[in-house]
Amino acid sequence: MSLTSASSFATFDTAPFAYETAAFLQPIPRPAHSEAVVRITPKYGRGTVAVTLRYLWHGCAEAPTVIVQGGISASRDVCSVGTVAGWWDDLVGSGRAVDLEHCRVLSIDWLAAGDIDGASAVSSEDQADALAALLDALGITQAQAFVGASYGAMVGLAFAARHPRRVGRVVAISGAHRAHPLATALRAIQREIVRGGIGRGDVAGALGLARQLAMTTYRGAEEFAERFDAEPEFREGRFHFPVEDYLVAAGRKFVARFDAERYLSLSESIDLHRLDAAAVRVPCEIVAVSSDRLVPSADLRALADGLGAAARFHEIDSCYGHDAFLKETRRISALVAAALSCC
Amino acid sequence: MSLTSASSFATFDTAPFAYETAAFLQPIPRPAHSEAVVRITPKYGRGTVAVTLRYLWHGCAEAPTVIVQGGISASRDVCSVGTVAGWWDDLVGSGRAVDLEHCRVLSIDWLAAGDIDGASAVSSEDQADALAALLDALGITQAQAFVGASYGAMVGLAFAARHPRRVGRVVAISGAHRAHPLATALRAIQREIVRGGIGRGDVAGALGLARQLAMTTYRGAEEFAERFDAEPEFREGRFHFPVEDYLVAAGRKFVARFDAERYLSLSESIDLHRLDAAAVRVPCEIVAVSSDRLVPSADLRALADGLGAAARFHEIDSCYGHDAFLKETRRISALVAAALSCC
Repeated sequence: MSLTSASSFATFDTAPFAYETAAFLQPIPRPAHSEAVVRITPKYGRGTVAVTLRYLWHGCAEAPTVIVQGGISASRDVCSVGTVAGWWDDLVGSGRAVDLEHCRVLSIDWLAAGDIDGASAVSSEDQADALAALLDALGITQAQAFVGASYGAMVGLAFAARHPRRVGRVVAISGAHRAHPLATALRAIQREIVRGGIGRGDVAGALGLARQLAMTTYRGAEEFAERFDAEPEFREGRFHFPVEDYLVAAGRKFVARFDAERYLSLSESIDLHRLDAAAVRVPCEIVAVSSDRLVPSADLRALADGLGAAARFHEIDSCYGHDAFLKETRRISALVAAALSCC
Repeated sequence: MSLTSASSFATFDTAPFAYETAAFLQPIPRPAHSEAVVRITPKYGRGTVAVTLRYLWHGCAEAPTVIVQGGISASRDVCSVGTVAGWWDDLVGSGRAVDLEHCRVLSIDWLAAGDIDGASAVSSEDQADALAALLDALGITQAQAFVGASYGAMVGLAFAARHPRRVGRVVAISGAHRAHPLATALRAIQREIVRGGIGRGDVAGALGLARQLAMTTYRGAEEFAERFDAEPEFREGRFHFPVEDYLVAAGRKFVARFDAERYLSLSESIDLHRLDAAAVRVPCEIVAVSSDRLVPSADLRALADGLGAAARFHEIDSCYGHDAFLKETRRISALVAAALSCC
């Protein structure tokens, strides 16, 4: 893995490592949003290939880098930059747990299989290797921490296993050593819905419906019950239930911002993820949520046990299920801030 | 609700009540499988209509009748009769909890909306009213008990609320006063899949996929994890996960035996079910299963609380989730046998 060429956006106008090690130099400002071409050897590919990585690198220029990655549908925009809003502004920003006054956040847009020449699928290891290659490209010897949620936690763990000297600590929220088979079942059905839609030329309808199914897995059952325990409405020849209307709207919103092939590839990547916990030597904070049906707390406890002395297990008691990392700001922030203070 | 005409199968060759009250008379044998035309006033219909009910009435001819009903995909064939196998033979038969040496089991094929003239949907109340009318038709003053599982439990509760003098006791297994909104969400998605398939002429594919989704809701998460925690196989251009192959096969089996419109109607009927627990005065045994994600134990406890003195709450600790009524034979049988001995 090495930098082969910088894209037109990325201007590598100082020597590698300068940003991290030579604090006495004032680096020339560079855009927060950029991209780089790096080389990886994909798990399901044919040899080493060059891939273009879109990334955000933003915050205090001289400070340590914290890698932050979310779920498969999350972009590199973890925090607001100019007019571009961040999806995790509660956690990443000035004065937040990932405090941009004291560190610099790095995040990539996930690679999909279609982004990798000759690859039949994309793996969490590929994402980890691409991130490690990006650290090379940016001259970062070691990231202070890798904060990952959902698929981002899987990739963080893969990163720790494969590139132990490139990260000080991993905070893995609601992502485990493998997908739970019931979650795999629900994603396999989502993918079948999407493939069917692609096959018959109804991508929007199918992707929306798949997203509806995904939405049912993201929140806790009790929260669903409280929000949607109301009478159905009879219209257009049939009953419509309140939860149904909510899901349809959520599906439509997703279709407007996401690509079906990308969804297929990243959804599959979650299910292909397998980590040997014994291979991880980096300190890890494993964060589980009591009501998460997609990544059950018991799986994360088993992961923490497998990691042994390197890991600390935390369970958040929350009604928000798998989405707790987006909703339980106070508790997630406290955990992340404490983890970063250890680095 | 009254008997209007007997079908060609049903031969009402003795006076009503004779089977139940005149034990000194040897009744003329009648076929176990039969049908009757009864009148109901459907909740979502236009006035009183005649419907044809297909039923099984089988066991000891002079003994009390026990109504037994299962989920929406279950037929009247709760026990083996001749060469026709029963789906609940473990519970219903000679020497079983519903002992056909000492009682007579009655079960109907559910009505779908399409079976009811002018009805836009079918309700659990309609099924209950049809069963009460069938008791009239068969000359049964009061059934000893109503043993219902899943949708059958919902109908049993509706029966108790609407026809309290027609049943001595209800055993409601894994069916509550209302559907859980998360379960409604998952069924709404199943129905959307099926409607889509009907619309484009791919009923089999869609019904199979909907059934796949339903299957993910029937078993406990841990049981899924134990059975399907294995590596995927790459074939036909993509990875196939073990759980996926299982679901595809289950979907196909279902398509071979079930009708899409019937599925739509009965699935919706579950979600339309709403019971005022305060309206129930019949003794009820409410049976919950610890790992049931479709009908959470907490909902059944709330139902039992609402029923008050009339109810006893039982929780079975099982890994089999909503399907426990089919798998936990020993414990379900013990509960049902104890309930029948109280009648």
